[in-house]
Amino acid sequence: MQDHLSETFAALADPTRRAMLAMLSQGEANVSDLAKPFLKDMSLPAITKHIKVLEKASLISKTRQAQWRPCKLNGEAFKDVAAWMEHYRIYWEQSFDRLDEYLKTVTATKKPPKTKMRGKKHDRSK
Amino acid sequence: MQDHLSETFAALADPTRRAMLAMLSQGEANVSDLAKPFLKDMSLPAITKHIKVLEKASLISKTRQAQWRPCKLNGEAFKDVAAWMEHYRIYWEQSFDRLDEYLKTVTATKKPPKTKMRGKKHDRSK
Repeated sequence: MQDHLSETFAALADPTRRAMLAMLSQGEANVSDLAKPFLKDMSLPAITKHIKVLEKASLISKTRQAQWRPCKLNGEAFKDVAAWMEHYRIYWEQSFDRLDEYLKTVTATKKPPKTKMRGKKHDRSK
Repeated sequence: MQDHLSETFAALADPTRRAMLAMLSQGEANVSDLAKPFLKDMSLPAITKHIKVLEKASLISKTRQAQWRPCKLNGEAFKDVAAWMEHYRIYWEQSFDRLDEYLKTVTATKKPPKTKMRGKKHDRSK
């Protein structure tokens, strides 16, 4: 039997399923609405299978509204991933820091033209 | 071809590989040291395969130190997962909030005995 966190990561390891989660992050959606954007690339049974994988991993859940059963994101499964990631924060923050450092370097090398502009203004005031 | 984020999530979808990452979060380790705790449960080729999956997903990388090639965690891949997760922060934070609320409720229901104790103290001072 697969452990729950492995099941969640496996469910996230697919671009179609991540696109479905991105759709649901905009609000609840019925299975038919959720399926629509993918119908040009795959069959309805294939789409339904993807939805079932997300549901089994508890990343989404079906609510009940009269005759409709819209899907919505389920925070609990995301929380488990976030909690697991927390242990590695020092590693991914170092990575973000390196990106910051790089952006600062890029900004610094772009500064000279600004000084030139100031020089021009000074010339005009003479 | 599998996209990179899918490859990362797929690599994380295994308890042995996550245990290896947890080991490497304590510091760099040679392949033989990394393999040791798993040798009682699986073959060396199986372990090597797990290490290769982590390496292919860029979650770990091999450095070079004289004749040794220790493995270490690679922040970049973790950063990609963290960046993807960020979009869903509102959902997993709601989940953490609900846990906080629950803990507050538990603390609140444990308060009455404290009031009782105060009453007793008051009686003693009479």
